[in-house]
Amino acid sequence: MSTSTSALAIEKQMIPQNEVQQVELLTEVEDLHGGVIVNMEKPMGSEAFASSLRASKSRWKQQGKRAVWIKLPIEYVNLVEPAVKEGFRYHHAEPDYLMLVNWISNSTNTLPGNASHRVGIGAFVMNDKREVLVVQEKNGKFKGNGVWKFPTGVVNEGEDISMAAVREVKEETGIDTEFVEILAFRQSHKSFFTKSDLFFVCILRPNSFDIQKQDMEIKAAQWISLDEYAAQPFIQKHDAFGIVAKVCITKLEKDYAGFSPIPTTTTSGKTNYLYLNSRDLNKL
Amino acid sequence: MSTSTSALAIEKQMIPQNEVQQVELLTEVEDLHGGVIVNMEKPMGSEAFASSLRASKSRWKQQGKRAVWIKLPIEYVNLVEPAVKEGFRYHHAEPDYLMLVNWISNSTNTLPGNASHRVGIGAFVMNDKREVLVVQEKNGKFKGNGVWKFPTGVVNEGEDISMAAVREVKEETGIDTEFVEILAFRQSHKSFFTKSDLFFVCILRPNSFDIQKQDMEIKAAQWISLDEYAAQPFIQKHDAFGIVAKVCITKLEKDYAGFSPIPTTTTSGKTNYLYLNSRDLNKL
Repeated sequence: MSTSTSALAIEKQMIPQNEVQQVELLTEVEDLHGGVIVNMEKPMGSEAFASSLRASKSRWKQQGKRAVWIKLPIEYVNLVEPAVKEGFRYHHAEPDYLMLVNWISNSTNTLPGNASHRVGIGAFVMNDKREVLVVQEKNGKFKGNGVWKFPTGVVNEGEDISMAAVREVKEETGIDTEFVEILAFRQSHKSFFTKSDLFFVCILRPNSFDIQKQDMEIKAAQWISLDEYAAQPFIQKHDAFGIVAKVCITKLEKDYAGFSPIPTTTTSGKTNYLYLNSRDLNKL
Repeated sequence: MSTSTSALAIEKQMIPQNEVQQVELLTEVEDLHGGVIVNMEKPMGSEAFASSLRASKSRWKQQGKRAVWIKLPIEYVNLVEPAVKEGFRYHHAEPDYLMLVNWISNSTNTLPGNASHRVGIGAFVMNDKREVLVVQEKNGKFKGNGVWKFPTGVVNEGEDISMAAVREVKEETGIDTEFVEILAFRQSHKSFFTKSDLFFVCILRPNSFDIQKQDMEIKAAQWISLDEYAAQPFIQKHDAFGIVAKVCITKLEKDYAGFSPIPTTTTSGKTNYLYLNSRDLNKL
């Protein structure tokens, strides 16, 4: 998006007395909210960076900018400390970069929060014999408690919920499936460090039946009768599991409409899925 | 959760030749997945930290630990660079801390991803005159395009979707509402840096009608007829907006069931909401 510095010299009066007169200003791009973004794309010494940042901040303030974002690839970890010393706070991080931000306006801080939720799926997959696909896990909170549960997993960054459900079932059990609907979902808080969790219970149609379990995370996998699944003391005892089992049974025996994925196209040509009650919508 | 160092000396043979013989080991707590977490809770010099970390890592490896997490409050920003030099990568960050992680096992890396989604709401609020509550925003991608849109907002960390919808309507327009249902939701990718977005369209019942708009973010707010809302060229032109308008009209005129929130209690006594099609579930 940009290079990290420009050779512009800034006016003398903006530079503190004890600094050299020629300070390279950082190069920024503008965002949609009156802020600027600095993408560091080449190495810099910590001290030179601190001077450039200080001088650049003065200019951005004069220009009435509201916020300054700095994206620091992990290779430039030496610049984290000088940025924090200049008033920046962390905004978010990924394995290979850290995003810092500084609200420089006198108006009320309206910085957007970081991503706040992890998204997970649970897959309800049933064969023609009214048997449901279940697993026991080697790690995590279900480890060693003997509970047979639906295959579950985390939706990857950039992955559609429906794709994630199909992928997780295939990875954990080797079963090929087709996505049908979201039957219900649960929001929970502080489930993962301070983060929240959205867990979507999906129904999928199996296209194969021969289980090949994944050994690393899955201790056992099998088809068991839905009634046997629902009768497990753990499922009975836990509110949310009990209700979900009831939803699954209603889906099979009555006319329960979940939310199905409808592809939509954005003006920039991307496909996003809308999930809604298509059965009721199509009554129109 | 823990203090940052312990005074245990480690065996001589684990320490590289050029280091002092007494190195303070970092204090860890165990996680549920065969890893350890170090919560830095007191300041440390960068070099002493690097030595402690190196020695502690050797011990954790010997113990067969799989991953090491380090939570660094922003005050200890001087420890970020030494941690990265010891092989750590960023995992996630919040304004006041950075979480780093290092997979130290020879087995396949199964580290969980960071929170991947922001969660937003759009609020469909209608009065008895078949008028819908709409706003124009001062910033963001709708700035200056003249479109009247539903009040929208971001769900805060730890906040329930239903509460967020009520709060945003109140903040932007002053209208008191009661949450009814989620009518549909959309998942989109790369909507905010590299992150994805889940946007829930909610229907709320108004309990007051006198608009008091919030000045900082909202340019204008009013009640307009639903047909006028749906007829806007922008709504007609954009796939997802058009479908959502159709869902809202179906909700009013026919029998469209969305997902309503059902409180559930976890074994630790927390309340989590399950969202599901209660109308169909209650047919049982």
